[in-house]
Amino acid sequence: MKQNIKLTIQYDGTVYAGWQIQENATTVQQVLEEAIRRVVGEEVRLIASGRTDAGVHAYGQVANFRTSSEIPGDKFHYHLKGLLPPDIDVICSEAVPWEFHSRYDALRKTYRYLVYNGESLHPTLRHLAAHVSYPLDVDKMQEAACRFLGEHDFRSFMASNSGEEQTIRSIDELEVCRRGNEIGFRIVGRSFLRNMIRILVGTLVEAGRGRIQPEDVTKILAAGNREAAGPTMPACGLYLMSVEYEKTETK
Amino acid sequence: MKQNIKLTIQYDGTVYAGWQIQENATTVQQVLEEAIRRVVGEEVRLIASGRTDAGVHAYGQVANFRTSSEIPGDKFHYHLKGLLPPDIDVICSEAVPWEFHSRYDALRKTYRYLVYNGESLHPTLRHLAAHVSYPLDVDKMQEAACRFLGEHDFRSFMASNSGEEQTIRSIDELEVCRRGNEIGFRIVGRSFLRNMIRILVGTLVEAGRGRIQPEDVTKILAAGNREAAGPTMPACGLYLMSVEYEKTETK
Repeated sequence: MKQNIKLTIQYDGTVYAGWQIQENATTVQQVLEEAIRRVVGEEVRLIASGRTDAGVHAYGQVANFRTSSEIPGDKFHYHLKGLLPPDIDVICSEAVPWEFHSRYDALRKTYRYLVYNGESLHPTLRHLAAHVSYPLDVDKMQEAACRFLGEHDFRSFMASNSGEEQTIRSIDELEVCRRGNEIGFRIVGRSFLRNMIRILVGTLVEAGRGRIQPEDVTKILAAGNREAAGPTMPACGLYLMSVEYEKTETK
Repeated sequence: MKQNIKLTIQYDGTVYAGWQIQENATTVQQVLEEAIRRVVGEEVRLIASGRTDAGVHAYGQVANFRTSSEIPGDKFHYHLKGLLPPDIDVICSEAVPWEFHSRYDALRKTYRYLVYNGESLHPTLRHLAAHVSYPLDVDKMQEAACRFLGEHDFRSFMASNSGEEQTIRSIDELEVCRRGNEIGFRIVGRSFLRNMIRILVGTLVEAGRGRIQPEDVTKILAAGNREAAGPTMPACGLYLMSVEYEKTETK
């Protein structure tokens, strides 16, 4: 093994069973590992910053792999062009220190969630946004959003079957912004529980339609119970935008 | 025959061989006529405001059909829900006077063309925008665009195989607008020649990258020759936004 190569990856997650390799379903990781194997002529194991669920998209997923290939790190992504389907693109590659680990070393992740808030969702958006047809009050949503900032126990905002014990997480930024009929959510934090962002957005939508008040967020967090929070929003509205690491010298 | 029903239709044109019925290929018209036939129990013939090419999308295509069905016109589109694939949606229906004709009566059409002007096109946009990676000067493009306004012979801006004799057309509005990496074109006119908008945008892109000057537009129009104009842009960036008619009393 000679190099550790870091990739920045974009994908349209519509047809994939998420990032992580599984049996009897096509995943983004599997397609990428297969393409890399064809370039380097050996099996590789991609380590991603984190899994994304089926239907979730990425603008800046990060993954690394170790290889004995001598292809220069910053040229590696060119070798993948033509070997990947049109819904997956590696936009950047670089050689990084041997010990770099996409998941353990991730400092901050930025996600975006897109809600189309209008009467009918245009067919071109059906895999790219969640549709909410009733009116939403963005000021109320932003007011509710502020109460998530900082460190909390997010047990109420975790898929009930995830079995994670350590449920304290920290949200650094959470913005809600309307542009016409589109409502965008920007969420920044070090790491998130399973379905946490989709449940969090579902709860903000409940605040936006007046079913809960912004100040109820505090109670919902305190409940420590999935049933206290709002519904899990669809995966197709969720985008992993970027993953930040400490500045390292490119090897 | 009892009613003439006007539909407003949205579609993602990605998988269709355009609007118009043809053999051995699936078209939007065919899918809609089949769904309507299942509702009314008789064959119908849809008349659209115009054809759209393979891959072109619509936010507001208009089509009408005559039927002996007694379903109230303004309820008709509800009957189509569930009979249409997820990439076609009828968002509105109404009964109109018997003589109303979607094509002959169309007064103005608005199209939009979307160019993604950045290094790499995100996979979710691959069927929804054209990709231009070199820098474009939007001011130059708008300057060139102004020269298309009004009535001209658009022979240079017509697919060379279209065999249309009457090539005078009029453009009422033509705007170019950048928002981040997206450049949107808004084009309004009564009717357009085959591929006219895609060639027109291709010519504006040539102006934006400095290959032609804005004042060259006058010469290109005067040439009356397809080879004088820029390339035909891809269909996937084109959207039929709306079709205007004289205000008629809904029947």
